[in-house]
Amino acid sequence: MMNLIRDLWFKRRDIVSQGYDDSLEYISRLIPLEIVSVPTGTQCWTWTVPEKWEVNNAYIEDLEGNRLLSLEDHPLHVMSYSLPIDQVVSKEELMKHLYSNPQRPGAIPFNFKYYQRDWGFCIQHNRLESFNEEQYKVFIDTTFEEGSLKIGVCTIPGEIEDVIVLVAHLCHPAMVNDDLTGVAVLVDLAKELMKKQNHYTYKLLFLPETIGSISYLSQNEEIIPKLKYGIFLEMLGNDNIHALQLSRRGNTLIDRVCQYVLKRKVEKFNEGPFRKIVGNDEMVFDGPGIFVPMPSISRWPYPEYHSSDDTPEIITGERLNESKELVLEILRILDLNYYPKRQFKGPVFLSGYGLWVDWRVNKKLNQNLEQIMLRLEGDKSIFDITEDLDMEFDDVLNYINAFEQNGLITRNEVH
Amino acid sequence: MMNLIRDLWFKRRDIVSQGYDDSLEYISRLIPLEIVSVPTGTQCWTWTVPEKWEVNNAYIEDLEGNRLLSLEDHPLHVMSYSLPIDQVVSKEELMKHLYSNPQRPGAIPFNFKYYQRDWGFCIQHNRLESFNEEQYKVFIDTTFEEGSLKIGVCTIPGEIEDVIVLVAHLCHPAMVNDDLTGVAVLVDLAKELMKKQNHYTYKLLFLPETIGSISYLSQNEEIIPKLKYGIFLEMLGNDNIHALQLSRRGNTLIDRVCQYVLKRKVEKFNEGPFRKIVGNDEMVFDGPGIFVPMPSISRWPYPEYHSSDDTPEIITGERLNESKELVLEILRILDLNYYPKRQFKGPVFLSGYGLWVDWRVNKKLNQNLEQIMLRLEGDKSIFDITEDLDMEFDDVLNYINAFEQNGLITRNEVH
Amino acid sequence: MMNLIRDLWFKRRDIVSQGYDDSLEYISRLIPLEIVSVPTGTQCWTWTVPEKWEVNNAYIEDLEGNRLLSLEDHPLHVMSYSLPIDQVVSKEELMKHLYSNPQRPGAIPFNFKYYQRDWGFCIQHNRLESFNEEQYKVFIDTTFEEGSLKIGVCTIPGEIEDVIVLVAHLCHPAMVNDDLTGVAVLVDLAKELMKKQNHYTYKLLFLPETIGSISYLSQNEEIIPKLKYGIFLEMLGNDNIHALQLSRRGNTLIDRVCQYVLKRKVEKFNEGPFRKIVGNDEMVFDGPGIFVPMPSISRWPYPEYHSSDDTPEIITGERLNESKELVLEILRILDLNYYPKRQFKGPVFLSGYGLWVDWRVNKKLNQNLEQIMLRLEGDKSIFDITEDLDMEFDDVLNYINAFEQNGLITRNEVH
Repeated sequence: MMNLIRDLWFKRRDIVSQGYDDSLEYISRLIPLEIVSVPTGTQCWTWTVPEKWEVNNAYIEDLEGNRLLSLEDHPLHVMSYSLPIDQVVSKEELMKHLYSNPQRPGAIPFNFKYYQRDWGFCIQHNRLESFNEEQYKVFIDTTFEEGSLKIGVCTIPGEIEDVIVLVAHLCHPAMVNDDLTGVAVLVDLAKELMKKQNHYTYKLLFLPETIGSISYLSQNEEIIPKLKYGIFLEMLGNDNIHALQLSRRGNTLIDRVCQYVLKRKVEKFNEGPFRKIVGNDEMVFDGPGIFVPMPSISRWPYPEYHSSDDTPEIITGERLNESKELVLEILRILDLNYYPKRQFKGPVFLSGYGLWVDWRVNKKLNQNLEQIMLRLEGDKSIFDITEDLDMEFDDVLNYINAFEQNGLITRNEVH
Repeated sequence: MMNLIRDLWFKRRDIVSQGYDDSLEYISRLIPLEIVSVPTGTQCWTWTVPEKWEVNNAYIEDLEGNRLLSLEDHPLHVMSYSLPIDQVVSKEELMKHLYSNPQRPGAIPFNFKYYQRDWGFCIQHNRLESFNEEQYKVFIDTTFEEGSLKIGVCTIPGEIEDVIVLVAHLCHPAMVNDDLTGVAVLVDLAKELMKKQNHYTYKLLFLPETIGSISYLSQNEEIIPKLKYGIFLEMLGNDNIHALQLSRRGNTLIDRVCQYVLKRKVEKFNEGPFRKIVGNDEMVFDGPGIFVPMPSISRWPYPEYHSSDDTPEIITGERLNESKELVLEILRILDLNYYPKRQFKGPVFLSGYGLWVDWRVNKKLNQNLEQIMLRLEGDKSIFDITEDLDMEFDDVLNYINAFEQNGLITRNEVH
Repeated sequence: MMNLIRDLWFKRRDIVSQGYDDSLEYISRLIPLEIVSVPTGTQCWTWTVPEKWEVNNAYIEDLEGNRLLSLEDHPLHVMSYSLPIDQVVSKEELMKHLYSNPQRPGAIPFNFKYYQRDWGFCIQHNRLESFNEEQYKVFIDTTFEEGSLKIGVCTIPGEIEDVIVLVAHLCHPAMVNDDLTGVAVLVDLAKELMKKQNHYTYKLLFLPETIGSISYLSQNEEIIPKLKYGIFLEMLGNDNIHALQLSRRGNTLIDRVCQYVLKRKVEKFNEGPFRKIVGNDEMVFDGPGIFVPMPSISRWPYPEYHSSDDTPEIITGERLNESKELVLEILRILDLNYYPKRQFKGPVFLSGYGLWVDWRVNKKLNQNLEQIMLRLEGDKSIFDITEDLDMEFDDVLNYINAFEQNGLITRNEVH
């Protein structure tokens, strides 16, 4: 994961841009990736795909030609999707177009105006005071042209066509934790999932935030009914505990599985309702008319957010690995879960089937043998029973699988 | 409102009586009123319409001809629907027919026996001790004859045939707060509602308590399915906070709108469940087989209740106006409320539609833009969304109306 | 009840045995009893009916012929369904087959291995220390042969075919509180129920624990859909408060009636969820695929449980009577309960029908006249209304019966 981050982090990966396309191509060399292209100007529900944007040069000079700020120093110095400009402007005018963050005065903030058509620079707040001339020459050489918004789709077919979708965005230029860490974890998850026989089909999506999700779904509406659950991933490398943002409904199976896994795998984590922790593509997937339950997992907050301080130095592979393992465990449980349906009558003669479990072998299971037997009516999944009885998923799964092997239950496919 | 009260308050407005008919006629000169007549003896579900009752004269004398109590002193001295009598009776016998209230010894209580066929006087409790003769002459000249119970119906047609019904009773003789204040507010509400274009049809009913409601509904059963919500009004002029008695179910839309308006418009108010604050015609409208949600709004309790102390002095126009404004606001919200149904997919590109609201313009709305957008599925009304998000009804209404103007939602008429 | 107990208690009533058959025959002389027989080897769902088992002789001797333990001293000395043996065994081997209870060292514990095919003795724990030889002669003369498991069924037909089933087991040899007290109370309940005209049909079952219920139901599956409610009875004679174990769902009508009756009839009682107090045949009747709500009533716990100390001395007829009365009252309420369905509109003109109740006659009823009238929609039973209004069942029943006599309600048979 760290290699990918080192190779891609400093690129200008704006939403429709060469840097973005190059990054996607890089990923396609790591895992099988279908590239979905949506041309500039395509109407995507209430949105429109923007033009391809490139920045060639940009600087601010005083009228004596002293360069006060230059794109060459840092890609973030130019606001994403800034209009071109070549003009002498008053200090007052310049200040309206200079974005800085007084809370983090030594860092260049990340700013963007994808749809508002404006020009702008981003600058360290503590450098503003040195701007005390009356006029400045501002120069931005950007181009807007027909292009294509691109979505990378890694599909891993499973036993059924129902899809669990995992999403990370790739469009934050020259930053790492937000958003390359989600991308890196997704690439590794793809590799792990490809090694397994899965029940669900998995789709791992790499895309520009919001407009990428909207473009993909609006141009591929036939996929929507197949999307069963989703997870959004981002900001996973910094040194903070995990933050679980629940899905819109907040109590769907995937929410409860996320809670179950986090409770067992990490000492502490934050939890909050939909859109109350971080806002990303879950507002599209779990939004109006789509409504695919999509929790989001991150390590929000972190102080370097949306600034030039979000560099490889603030993340570690150890954190990324930890997050990857969490998601793998969530997916493992979802994948193994099913609805057992009783095929026997009366309490089962357990010892006759080798289904008796001594309390010295597993006390909790021993205490719950009858309780499990009473919950095999096809309306409760293995995970529901696990929760009901406050047990371990694998204990319940293995025990009920033994019922299946004895022909005592079948799998009820109606979820 | 005060004119109506001054003109009508001292009349004997018993349930079927000339005074009642005259009062209804008086109201019909103020607002358009259909008079529904139901003749004496008509079977109304399990009830029967009583005879028209008049009282001409009544007194108690000692055997020397000293008049101890006389109808001429106060109409309430004769029990409503008293039988006639002309007889010398023992003190013991008289006492069984003298009604007084030891809790309010200086006032004549209001008593009635509409269906029990008995004679009786009402008297100040502190005058009882002066009755120390052995025998008295009692004289009551009342007549029972064929007549018609009358209901005044003011119908204000709206866009739809569904009806909101407002009810006040008019049958409490020579008293003011109970029940003329409800009548006075209803007359003014009719005037206000007639000035507007309304979504609902409104019916404002003036009638004798209980038997009036039962007569009206039983003889006009075809109206019942159209009755959507109702409010009962009474005791609105005294100097007390409002008392909101919820409907039978207690959590219907109109209950919640009443709570919402009262919380915002008055500093304090009492609230209680159905039939636990005051009992009136809501037991008919919201009763067996009818079940129209009907909260009741009053200023219960007040010390002069059901006595000769319930006079114009204990009420003010200011209180009546305050109550009227509350009801108007409740009706305004009910009338404007609707179920918005999403016609878009994905999160709306708000700024493209001018639907972005800056937090400096309306912070609460700004914070809830997404939350509103997620609740446009046609199963939540504007008011439901208002409650969900603890917002102001008009903010939500205006914002969602803007969605409608952009073709982003339609109105779902299924309530 | 005490006669039955004295006559039967010391018999070896093992699950398929002569002592069991004799006991059932004894009961059939007290009440009408259909005997259902299920032969050895019959497959009963996942179970198989065991062989008839008899024990003729059994002892342990040292090699000098000193008899250390003998069946003649107490029937419980041989483990139920022990295999025969005639062998000299090491002390170590013997100890694996000697069952004792260190918590109750002076009593012979009750042990059984119906399905595991093993031999064993049961012995007072404080006698173990005297076993210090190296070898012992063990002799058990038991026979396993074809037989029939027998269930005694007392059916008391009622107005409808729906059945309330009462269950007690009869298979615990030489003990009293568990399980003869449940049997004794059941016999008396049969006598009482036969004296009445009942709405429900009653079935009172006497059977061996678990395998008896499974045998009966599996061989008579057509009965299952008719079983509406059940009660399991056991351990009712010891000097302890009652323990109510709720049915699987825990909030069915019979659960709530049990709670209602116990709250009113006894000062204190314990209550717990399904299978958390005592485990008996309710796991069959209220178990997988059957799901007949079956609370259990006992006086669990008691210190002499499953030991030779469970003798007639630890129980009293007074306790048994008290339990019987509780059950009778539960059945009376279930039997009288029905769903009243309104046949009137509007509030009833109560005084016209003699349905007015003065507060001086019954204050609680007076306060609830309207509340009762508002609950006659056919979706609430008399008992539901009783609970809703925290009233007495008979007050509500008698009052609503008076509505029925006036043609104001009908009985809604859909339960």
